[in-house]
Amino acid sequence: MVTNTALIFKKVPESLPVEGEHIVIEHRDFDLDARPPEGGLTVQNFLLSFDPYQRGCLREPDEATYGPSFPINEPLLCGAVSRILKSTIPEFNEGDLVWGLFGAEQYTAVPPVLVPQVRKLDNPLGLDPIVFTGALGTAGLSAYASFYEIGKPKPGQTIYISAASGGVGQIVGQLAKMEGLTVIGSVGSDEKLDLIVNELGFDAGFNYKKESPAAALNRLAPQGLDIYYDNVGGETLSAALNAMKDFGRVVSCGMISQYNLSPEDRYGVKNLGQLFLKRLTVQGFIISDPEIMLKYVMEFSIKMSAYLKEGKVKSIESLTVGIENAAQSFLSMYSGANFGKTVLKIANVA
Amino acid sequence: MVTNTALIFKKVPESLPVEGEHIVIEHRDFDLDARPPEGGLTVQNFLLSFDPYQRGCLREPDEATYGPSFPINEPLLCGAVSRILKSTIPEFNEGDLVWGLFGAEQYTAVPPVLVPQVRKLDNPLGLDPIVFTGALGTAGLSAYASFYEIGKPKPGQTIYISAASGGVGQIVGQLAKMEGLTVIGSVGSDEKLDLIVNELGFDAGFNYKKESPAAALNRLAPQGLDIYYDNVGGETLSAALNAMKDFGRVVSCGMISQYNLSPEDRYGVKNLGQLFLKRLTVQGFIISDPEIMLKYVMEFSIKMSAYLKEGKVKSIESLTVGIENAAQSFLSMYSGANFGKTVLKIANVA
Repeated sequence: MVTNTALIFKKVPESLPVEGEHIVIEHRDFDLDARPPEGGLTVQNFLLSFDPYQRGCLREPDEATYGPSFPINEPLLCGAVSRILKSTIPEFNEGDLVWGLFGAEQYTAVPPVLVPQVRKLDNPLGLDPIVFTGALGTAGLSAYASFYEIGKPKPGQTIYISAASGGVGQIVGQLAKMEGLTVIGSVGSDEKLDLIVNELGFDAGFNYKKESPAAALNRLAPQGLDIYYDNVGGETLSAALNAMKDFGRVVSCGMISQYNLSPEDRYGVKNLGQLFLKRLTVQGFIISDPEIMLKYVMEFSIKMSAYLKEGKVKSIESLTVGIENAAQSFLSMYSGANFGKTVLKIANVA
Repeated sequence: MVTNTALIFKKVPESLPVEGEHIVIEHRDFDLDARPPEGGLTVQNFLLSFDPYQRGCLREPDEATYGPSFPINEPLLCGAVSRILKSTIPEFNEGDLVWGLFGAEQYTAVPPVLVPQVRKLDNPLGLDPIVFTGALGTAGLSAYASFYEIGKPKPGQTIYISAASGGVGQIVGQLAKMEGLTVIGSVGSDEKLDLIVNELGFDAGFNYKKESPAAALNRLAPQGLDIYYDNVGGETLSAALNAMKDFGRVVSCGMISQYNLSPEDRYGVKNLGQLFLKRLTVQGFIISDPEIMLKYVMEFSIKMSAYLKEGKVKSIESLTVGIENAAQSFLSMYSGANFGKTVLKIANVA
């Protein structure tokens, strides 16, 4: 028996989850010698990916939304870089380094239902394994697939990306620069603004806590937007709709500004007349849809690995160390205290 | 000299236009013997099409929106069935029956800039010329092109159409029935509900003044919507987003519920999270875009003419007679007093 420290979903939050009430660090016993259930695995988790969509899983199971709700009294599910400790199936052997949807905990007894999503981490270029939680993981694939599939970028066009320093936004921005677009980003601090403009090569950006999106888009994109890559929703989406050019595309990847608000407190978008006035296309996107994932995953993996190896794309992670700090890491996404893709390191990949 | 009675745009309305203040019937002199400007035409107008988008043209010229603003102190521009009285160009001869964007008046001196949109009315099937203001005109083409291009209908799917008895809605509904869809419509009176269900073949419908869209869609489409054809926006759009299935399509053709509201009074849509939760595609549409018009106009003209001749599609017009009643006819679109496609007959086609 070992101690298995975990971030447990205890209670459905009405608004922002509170550590100790809705999400709680617990220490449970884990039997490393137990054979996993037939078809299952036992893994040790090293790196956890925290992603904004997880807030939507902290809910009652009967609410219709995408993805599973997290079971109460169980660890949050996260994309994770992990090592196989025990396997009951021939596809995986003890010692394999894998990516999967595992618990926010040190060790996970992986039930058979989650095994089909597990994949071995091929890393022929010798990249830092942390990139598999971000630029080369779900966030990166989301960015890549939606940017090309929905954004339909063309050289010379202008894109605006909200939450631009986050796991998805930072990749969209760097891809857009490579494709010859003018790239504008918004972030929630001057440090993040410096990051996207001076480290990641965005053409311009603004701190939405200091300047309204409407004013900033007037200032930075008087020519109008061809693409708005929406990670935040609310007032920012409304301002972007006003700034779009005719026939512009809006990629709706998330709405982090709205996740911790009750339905009646959410921002009411009053300018949807822009949709037909400008013949806009707005398309929602979730990477877990098999069709779009299968269409892009191979191309993405090959190209993004090379971009990272060559330094053409930088992967900026907001790294927190120690499972005891998992709640703090998770909540940093919603407070904006994170700085880059939010990653929790439980232990060095070994 | 003859008297030319016209519906004149006098003043920009803040909300609902008022007859006598914002739109005014005036009698002006018209010289039937004068030669039109070089490249122009003189026409006599018989049938005028009133369409909801025209409200958006009653504005200050500097506001960015689609289409031209109507010039102050000039007649409203309408799609019209008219006869050429004088021509300065070889494409048109005196006596030709044509469709064009002409003034809401008895006679129009057509400036050269509007001539490229004029087309001769071929009517080999001997249809009532009134269909060229509706089912076989701009409303019909809008319905046809957007239903196929954006709606991407498949047999067995469910479509919900708001403003279902209007010029566009009635055609979308009948096309959808022919394509094997389950068709639900909303209207603003019990008489209109009877029309769409018992005359036009909709599977079901509701009177939004008696039942909220949210409640009605729960009742009539518990299976969810594959397509929402939006003519009204606001609360109805919000309810439809909640009722959509994954990967549903929203055709944004207009938002008549919002046109007479100031920007701050418009309905705030708070559930745009449905966009990515359900991976919806929302696409705005205006038939005047050359690309989509050219793609569909031939196919539409041939098929819709046959549908009308064979009685497979019924064209329901809300006919008002007499140019003196033009303001009443125009305003009936926004009060809901109309019953079908809004058409003003100035005189019998002769």
